[in-house]
Amino acid sequence: MRSESKKESINQQTVNMYRTNTCGELRLSDVNKKVTLAGWVQKIRKMGGMTFIDLRDRYGITQLSFNQEINAVLCEQANKLGREWVIQIVGTVAERSSKNANIPTGDIEIIASELNVLNASKTPPFTIETDTDGGDDIRMKYRYLDLRRSVVRQNLELRHKMAFETRRYLDERGFLEVETPVLVASTPEGARDFIVPSRMNRGEFYALPQSPQTLKQLLMVSGFDRYFQIVKCFRDEDLRADRQPEFTQIDCEMSFVQQEDILTLFEGLTRHLFKSIKGIELPEFPRISYADAMKYYGSDKPDIRFEMQFIELKDLTGGHGFGVFDSAEYVGAICAEGCATYTRKQLDELTDFVKRPQIGAKGLVYVRYNADGTLKSSVDKFYSETDLKQWVDRCKAKPGDLLLVLSGETEKTQKQLGELRLEMGSRLSLRDKFNYKCLWVIDFPLLEKDEELGRYFAKHHPFTSPKPEDIPALDTDPGAVRANAYDIVINGVEVGGGSIRIHDSELQQKMFATLGFTPERAQEQFGFLMNAFKYGAPPHGGIAFGLDRLVSLFAGLDSIRDCIAFPKNNAGRDVMLDAPSRVDQEQLDELGIALAKKEQ
Amino acid sequence: MRSESKKESINQQTVNMYRTNTCGELRLSDVNKKVTLAGWVQKIRKMGGMTFIDLRDRYGITQLSFNQEINAVLCEQANKLGREWVIQIVGTVAERSSKNANIPTGDIEIIASELNVLNASKTPPFTIETDTDGGDDIRMKYRYLDLRRSVVRQNLELRHKMAFETRRYLDERGFLEVETPVLVASTPEGARDFIVPSRMNRGEFYALPQSPQTLKQLLMVSGFDRYFQIVKCFRDEDLRADRQPEFTQIDCEMSFVQQEDILTLFEGLTRHLFKSIKGIELPEFPRISYADAMKYYGSDKPDIRFEMQFIELKDLTGGHGFGVFDSAEYVGAICAEGCATYTRKQLDELTDFVKRPQIGAKGLVYVRYNADGTLKSSVDKFYSETDLKQWVDRCKAKPGDLLLVLSGETEKTQKQLGELRLEMGSRLSLRDKFNYKCLWVIDFPLLEKDEELGRYFAKHHPFTSPKPEDIPALDTDPGAVRANAYDIVINGVEVGGGSIRIHDSELQQKMFATLGFTPERAQEQFGFLMNAFKYGAPPHGGIAFGLDRLVSLFAGLDSIRDCIAFPKNNAGRDVMLDAPSRVDQEQLDELGIALAKKEQ
Repeated sequence: MRSESKKESINQQTVNMYRTNTCGELRLSDVNKKVTLAGWVQKIRKMGGMTFIDLRDRYGITQLSFNQEINAVLCEQANKLGREWVIQIVGTVAERSSKNANIPTGDIEIIASELNVLNASKTPPFTIETDTDGGDDIRMKYRYLDLRRSVVRQNLELRHKMAFETRRYLDERGFLEVETPVLVASTPEGARDFIVPSRMNRGEFYALPQSPQTLKQLLMVSGFDRYFQIVKCFRDEDLRADRQPEFTQIDCEMSFVQQEDILTLFEGLTRHLFKSIKGIELPEFPRISYADAMKYYGSDKPDIRFEMQFIELKDLTGGHGFGVFDSAEYVGAICAEGCATYTRKQLDELTDFVKRPQIGAKGLVYVRYNADGTLKSSVDKFYSETDLKQWVDRCKAKPGDLLLVLSGETEKTQKQLGELRLEMGSRLSLRDKFNYKCLWVIDFPLLEKDEELGRYFAKHHPFTSPKPEDIPALDTDPGAVRANAYDIVINGVEVGGGSIRIHDSELQQKMFATLGFTPERAQEQFGFLMNAFKYGAPPHGGIAFGLDRLVSLFAGLDSIRDCIAFPKNNAGRDVMLDAPSRVDQEQLDELGIALAKKEQ
Repeated sequence: MRSESKKESINQQTVNMYRTNTCGELRLSDVNKKVTLAGWVQKIRKMGGMTFIDLRDRYGITQLSFNQEINAVLCEQANKLGREWVIQIVGTVAERSSKNANIPTGDIEIIASELNVLNASKTPPFTIETDTDGGDDIRMKYRYLDLRRSVVRQNLELRHKMAFETRRYLDERGFLEVETPVLVASTPEGARDFIVPSRMNRGEFYALPQSPQTLKQLLMVSGFDRYFQIVKCFRDEDLRADRQPEFTQIDCEMSFVQQEDILTLFEGLTRHLFKSIKGIELPEFPRISYADAMKYYGSDKPDIRFEMQFIELKDLTGGHGFGVFDSAEYVGAICAEGCATYTRKQLDELTDFVKRPQIGAKGLVYVRYNADGTLKSSVDKFYSETDLKQWVDRCKAKPGDLLLVLSGETEKTQKQLGELRLEMGSRLSLRDKFNYKCLWVIDFPLLEKDEELGRYFAKHHPFTSPKPEDIPALDTDPGAVRANAYDIVINGVEVGGGSIRIHDSELQQKMFATLGFTPERAQEQFGFLMNAFKYGAPPHGGIAFGLDRLVSLFAGLDSIRDCIAFPKNNAGRDVMLDAPSRVDQEQLDELGIALAKKEQ
């Protein structure tokens, strides 16, 4: 009811001088009303002495009808229109003889009495339909036409609603949206910054923020207590399907909180969005430690739409003369239900899959647990049926199931098995994109060792607080220190993450030292933050959601691009605007910069 | 009631692990409750065997009390705290013996039973009070401490509310918030762009948008019908008190509308904001043409908190031998009520005021209409009392009033008289900053001639549509062509402006030609827009409000800086972050740019 009455009020409000109604609102109850509509010609059909036009606007499609016998001049005018022309029509609402149940206005049509062409249109380079004939490149070049397609527009309507509901939820809970600057200082940590030469400060550069991380922490020092911002962030990285040089975060921070406060409040936000936008009531989100996520799913963003957890078999596999398993640090299996009937070809495909360089396994062992209870494996030479029975029992496999086994160095193999698990999930149609399963991954390691450089990096960022009980290990075993850090994962996609921050300047200094910063460099780059911590910083923590990813998930998109009005391509170009582009020498001179000579 | 219950729910929601209540919510009805609070030490007072602490958070201040006799250890602990320390306190709510009527929690205090120091604080470099002892520079350097002052924080709370109410109003009317890109193409028209070197497209640059003007027009071509965005915009201009290199607009666009639709809807928005935020019910906004605004106020953003309109006297002043008036194109007066008693010194001050180089008048003529009905002027040599009586009659002056008269070239003199009018308004205290008077200025000229360059520039921007009846004059008298453009002005400040756009690619081409673009240059810079217009562009128009200015007006601020969390100074610097700054050579190399050699 509520959304219906809201819709009414929008429709009343969209009465402008060019129209009395939108193309989405007239119904049988409006029959005999004289109306004025405006919109785009979606389709023209001639049938006998009649011409029918589908008139389209953002709100829907309404059929217009012209009768050669009643008004020949007007009908001729209508016949001369083309696709995508913009017209205004005056007419009377009438009941349709052949109704269209697929659209809300399908019971009525407009008997036209006046037609004004507001603008003509050239023939569009592709059809403005859900299934368009336009390829990616042409659709991006003419993005303003692509955006006319209701499938694309709906993604942006969804995005608007999600952003608005997020703001409403946070506003109701006392959060203040505070705008932080876009022109900030460059920090060589993390990803590459975009930089902006300053004309007034020649030779110096602003940077575009990779996130408002330090600024939101300063707002906590300022006592803002609850901050959020839906904000553009920037990373000059090479692009992939789910990366854009500019992306949008729902960025949040709270004071006087522990991890539990944040998990509760933002699980609430996520559930509110699913409920208010998609009408889905989600159960409480399970929580899993990073260690268990790796152990059971081989991923820090497990897809829990399906089970198929890893089972370790190392202890059952030794001493049978199979060198591969004997020398492996880890032997693990997944059980694919009902797949014992997989053909040789299917098993070869899976072997090829895990051997792809992106995955990197050396081979795949399988065990068929046939429907008749017999067992058949690719390692029958080494293991008897009795041996294999132990494996399938541990895996709780039933006759008809298939075990897939990988082995090798623990972490690598778990990741490979994780990829294989996802592949099997897809093959078994267990990954319906509209079946939403959320979870928290918690207890991330604080640090990550770069084996090549031989030094530690912050897994999350250098402001993440270690678990208090793990602080002593910072000196003895940094790799074992767990962080008060958490990610929110939906259907195998990390849609948000955050942490409780360090709010003590000494611990922050220790953290910088662990990360290999000299005190001078730490001071130069983060002096303002460490200084701020000396003036009464409260305990605080936060989280940031990737809005683009979240909208994509809600919309069931494969790429984030189609929930962005004007995205960039993989080369970072906006092909419609033709950006980036060359600039005048004069402009460079004013900024005090020059193009570097081509590589010598 | 509603806001009270909303507040309740916020307070309940702000219960975190570190506190059961905020420092702003406890009342007499809470007496005897055991509570935990957390916040900053605002003040410590020792009185006899008692220690009192004012504990502060974003929500308010609560008094804590420690009794030496009852708990000496705890009281000693409290005595050791300093200003701005962050503490957590457990205690019992009690009625105060000496109540403080100035704060909502003034009836109660907390009898402390446990005290935890969450963080210590160095002595802040200035006092965290409404009237601080900190100068501008130090407050900006320690902005995170400055933001603790409730006067500053309240501005940002106001800003949050205004942005949220704007979104609510527009959402209810079917507007979609669509994010447009921050990395766009540079357009050498208008103000200077900030540019961003592209690493992936060496030698090329993105620009930061001065406004999403062309993109929002493309969204109209896409059929979005109603768009808005609260969005950061960028201009690399030299700065003044009310300018920042990055600023925020409420940017809006609508399709199938005429000017009247836009004025109605956005007058509605403005009134909604005044009503919902400040409880002020505004009358319908008057409308005045640009021509009349200049004629009666000498300004395109008249301050109508007071009358004092210009009266033309040219026809009454000729032929009396006063060469200054005889040779002037324009002679105009304002009538300052009750100012006939102005002293010689006061009149000299006014003469000095109009002769300042920023104003540039050559002199000031006055006429005292004394209380006894006699007339005395600075030009008695040329004009008799009978002559002067004609002037004061036309000005509808009463005995006791003072006429101030300027003369010269029409446009210049009107501007000077406009400045004098504002000065008199201030002197007569007619410009109360909390007395809000809004109006629309309409019918702006389409073009403005640069006399030096001898060519026309767009007064608004090149996409503004001329009034249809004035289109023929584009060829014959471009300066006389009026635009479908409008500004919204509050208390003499232009807070927003917009126009009905050109939606016809031929008219747009003609406009570019009038502005001196070659077809090639027009194509190069705006080809995507003119091309888009060929595919069925609807009639459309829009408006943009300056959010910073609007918030400043609501807050009664003189500068926009104090409604921005982290503003930049007049040199475009963020002194807290120390941005802009030098970057590594390596970073420049990757981008393919170099610093230019110092000027030869």
